[in-house]
Amino acid sequence: MTKSFDELIAKTGAPKKLSIAVAQDSAVIEAAVEAKKRNIAIPVLFGDADKINAVAKEINADISDLEIVDIKDDLEAAHEAVKYVHEGHAEMYMKGIIDTKNFLKSVLDKEVGLRTGKALSHVAVFQVPGIDHLLFLTDVAFIPYPTLEDKKAMIEYTVNVARACGVEMPKVAPLAAVEVVNPKMSVTVEAAELTKLNEEGEIKNCIVDGPLSMDLAIDPEAAKHKNAGGRKIVGDADVLVFPDIHAGNLVYKTLVHTTNSENGCILTGTKAPVILTSRSDTFETKVNSIALAAVVAENLKKLQ
Amino acid sequence: MTKSFDELIAKTGAPKKLSIAVAQDSAVIEAAVEAKKRNIAIPVLFGDADKINAVAKEINADISDLEIVDIKDDLEAAHEAVKYVHEGHAEMYMKGIIDTKNFLKSVLDKEVGLRTGKALSHVAVFQVPGIDHLLFLTDVAFIPYPTLEDKKAMIEYTVNVARACGVEMPKVAPLAAVEVVNPKMSVTVEAAELTKLNEEGEIKNCIVDGPLSMDLAIDPEAAKHKNAGGRKIVGDADVLVFPDIHAGNLVYKTLVHTTNSENGCILTGTKAPVILTSRSDTFETKVNSIALAAVVAENLKKLQ
Repeated sequence: MTKSFDELIAKTGAPKKLSIAVAQDSAVIEAAVEAKKRNIAIPVLFGDADKINAVAKEINADISDLEIVDIKDDLEAAHEAVKYVHEGHAEMYMKGIIDTKNFLKSVLDKEVGLRTGKALSHVAVFQVPGIDHLLFLTDVAFIPYPTLEDKKAMIEYTVNVARACGVEMPKVAPLAAVEVVNPKMSVTVEAAELTKLNEEGEIKNCIVDGPLSMDLAIDPEAAKHKNAGGRKIVGDADVLVFPDIHAGNLVYKTLVHTTNSENGCILTGTKAPVILTSRSDTFETKVNSIALAAVVAENLKKLQ
Repeated sequence: MTKSFDELIAKTGAPKKLSIAVAQDSAVIEAAVEAKKRNIAIPVLFGDADKINAVAKEINADISDLEIVDIKDDLEAAHEAVKYVHEGHAEMYMKGIIDTKNFLKSVLDKEVGLRTGKALSHVAVFQVPGIDHLLFLTDVAFIPYPTLEDKKAMIEYTVNVARACGVEMPKVAPLAAVEVVNPKMSVTVEAAELTKLNEEGEIKNCIVDGPLSMDLAIDPEAAKHKNAGGRKIVGDADVLVFPDIHAGNLVYKTLVHTTNSENGCILTGTKAPVILTSRSDTFETKVNSIALAAVVAENLKKLQ
């Protein structure tokens, strides 16, 4: 069980090389410098060297010990940055000040990208006050309306991330408004199917129990009150699987904007961990995301 | 603007008569006694008088000043309790220890019930730490997959509840994962349609602006950061309209189980406010729900 991002950062092992695409952005440089300082990552900055140095000066960041690969054109910088990971020179890939569409094009590049042939997805890891372990939310940002097959892949990706973070046998809750199957709500039917696939050994290395309402998934007291004793998950879920991107994203932002949670996110379904932070993410979120990527890079190969 | 349930309770006016169906339940009696004590309600307990007195004795509740209508059969008790409201003897109707299905049957009874001919829906009112006004969430419990027409009705019901609570011109946010229309996401298309219906005067007495993500709806700082200045809602929404019951219920329970929020709920689309609390609701939630019903009973007629 990993309780916090501090514990998570302790599990990153030796610092991992981090390739950053179009790095001339103050928030990205700040996070990179911090990750270097905390021995989480060794950032390599792909982008316009003049601009990178100017931005660093502007925010008083010392980047004298960071490697810069000077490429003026943004698309070319992303191409070289992802190729650097593809060729094994770096273990993690991060978005700088390039729009998401072009960044993802580099991730999915057939020759130098990080595609596995499977769908890309997203995991958001949360440390929530009052909950004694990390929560792994999927998918709050990437797959709009996941099919049953997508959800199976999302669970497999996220279980691997949770295991890399030290959760030996993650408990996976496919969420819904209710905790019983209702044929009129396909979400609940699919949640039951995912549970069955797990029982039959088709989804491995985890315990799936759905459909589950949020209280039964995350609140042991509520689960006790509701007499959920016969279930495999009683308020102690590690992985929360959302019905669709709207439910996932609304809960994700509710946690971010109404609680004192910390979080970090990475893409999944890629050959190496990819960090796709958004402009509105805090400094702490960016550093947490790099740490999460580093833990996954450190431990994922051991698990497979 | 109403900031808290304490402020809300101050707006209930003279205590309203509250008819309770099948009242022999400790949690219901506790809430009824408290609502009487705080001058919110004058409860009338329909149910088995022997059992009601036994339960009251068990929990040391003084119900000597509460009216009891002794009816042993549960369905008959609900029938008489709802008829009491239908005939105007009481202004609010509340579920006791009768299952939801039979309780709703009494609400929808064609002869003595509280139906208006329109769909029933649900509003959950939240006081969330860090947010300086009450939030009105719809629909987190009742309509599984609302159509555009349902959403229009949900907004109208909830705007009336918000106005009864003192919000003169409620700001209504039809929520989604994103804040721009995406033709592949019908939720965003419908959110834009609701906005248009409001601009054309089809949805009145409120300001609708959607689609909106949760941060732009409830966090003024985030809205500022994202340059949402051109929008009608900049982190100051009063009413949150959810895409479907899964998104709504998952956010509702996230607020209940990870924040120190207070909440109260009533059904909407009925002739008089109906309180349908669940067993897992706290004492405070039950009392808040009665207060919310009382405020609506006090002010709704003035508005129409």
